[in-house]
Amino acid sequence: MKRNMRVGAILKTLMDYPGEIFTLNYFSERLKAAKSSISEDIVIIKGLFRELDLGSIETITGASGGVMVKPFKSEEDRRLLLDRLSKVLMEKNRRIPGGFLYYADILYQAHYVKDLGEMIAQRFFHDKIDYVMTIETKGITLGLMTANYLNVPLVVARKDNRISEGATISINYVSGSTGNLSSMYCAKRAIKRGRRVLIVDDFLRGGGTIRGMMDLVEEFESEVVGVAVFIDNRDQGKKMIRDYYAILNMETVGDEIHVKGQGL
Amino acid sequence: MKRNMRVGAILKTLMDYPGEIFTLNYFSERLKAAKSSISEDIVIIKGLFRELDLGSIETITGASGGVMVKPFKSEEDRRLLLDRLSKVLMEKNRRIPGGFLYYADILYQAHYVKDLGEMIAQRFFHDKIDYVMTIETKGITLGLMTANYLNVPLVVARKDNRISEGATISINYVSGSTGNLSSMYCAKRAIKRGRRVLIVDDFLRGGGTIRGMMDLVEEFESEVVGVAVFIDNRDQGKKMIRDYYAILNMETVGDEIHVKGQGL
Repeated sequence: MKRNMRVGAILKTLMDYPGEIFTLNYFSERLKAAKSSISEDIVIIKGLFRELDLGSIETITGASGGVMVKPFKSEEDRRLLLDRLSKVLMEKNRRIPGGFLYYADILYQAHYVKDLGEMIAQRFFHDKIDYVMTIETKGITLGLMTANYLNVPLVVARKDNRISEGATISINYVSGSTGNLSSMYCAKRAIKRGRRVLIVDDFLRGGGTIRGMMDLVEEFESEVVGVAVFIDNRDQGKKMIRDYYAILNMETVGDEIHVKGQGL
Repeated sequence: MKRNMRVGAILKTLMDYPGEIFTLNYFSERLKAAKSSISEDIVIIKGLFRELDLGSIETITGASGGVMVKPFKSEEDRRLLLDRLSKVLMEKNRRIPGGFLYYADILYQAHYVKDLGEMIAQRFFHDKIDYVMTIETKGITLGLMTANYLNVPLVVARKDNRISEGATISINYVSGSTGNLSSMYCAKRAIKRGRRVLIVDDFLRGGGTIRGMMDLVEEFESEVVGVAVFIDNRDQGKKMIRDYYAILNMETVGDEIHVKGQGL
């Protein structure tokens, strides 16, 4: 097989499984080429990623070493994405009575949610995340794509107790904006003890739901190491959580809703 | 830029946006190379995909022509995937009282759900799908990945009427297995008139929920052109729907639950 074919084949595998480490042996056997040739192929792919600002290929040395694609969006790409999203979300017809914004369609378009998930994964890549957790419904797609780029499972908490989840652990939580009491449930087998969890949600108002997820993770004797949300409603000044990363901020200014992107 | 770098760069773009057509001009400008060179690069990528049975690169001729990656899993890859899934799903500890099976973790692992979504997309690729529709909760990840490979938006029906969806259209439906009456809701702006919809769901028992989604699509004056489910419970003989594609069949045999993959 020619070099440019091998380069393509290796790149496809790395891209199909971001965050997963592949050994040189794996490619050497699969593509029937010497390890030294594979090594040179990887140098080419690294160069390509650098030159086109596509991200970074990481080489891990040692016995369990190999090569993987790290989640990465260049600053330029992130800015372009957030500018476009801000513009789309500020369209007049998205305002819903009660100070709401219609944004479900954004989170239901794979190309947007892939980019957003990669951004979140990029930010938390070095935090040794074991699980991404979200709660039904609208945050699921963003959670999935974040989990994809971190190469970990997604866990979805439910607002109802479903038979098909088997044994569950549940907590009660207070909505930060309305003060209402609700419950959330998570399958007992979904999270092992002593793990590191990243919480991802679509919308942050008072923070009660996320506070609830944090309590839920604690019941699993695991640890929340980060919180990321798609949109932070800044009209709600008092939040029940402190450290979090919001991709977009939303704010009512006079008669308009302003949406603005945040850096990483 | 050298050929093998260009090949990698083109491949990355095509893979990032499956089902989307990119013109030769696009690559020519972006990579600062002659269209004839880009054309040769694409021939190399086509060869690579063919040689490694990775899928197919389609070239569309004419004014709006270009090149794209079609969703594709080889028969061998599909068989391997379904065999692995059957084995995993038949583990004893997945059985839940009431004849249920715990499978949420499968649909919450990106690498599984990407492969499954690509399989569904492959089967319905030539049906000119405009939207993939699902209903909360567990089918959302599969719906998203199917929509990704078909390059169309996902639409998620809800079991409750939420303020944040804005104006909704709703229908009532009867559960095929329990006979209970429920409602489902979908944002009015989510589906335009006269479109072609593929319904994706995680589990098929009596088929009442899918029947409901079909009625809902009709209220949008659109058309259901296909139905795909992850698991078909064959214990429930009488179904409220007829034509559908199930990735896996599940059946109680004596004291055991058998799970078996279907072809495309």
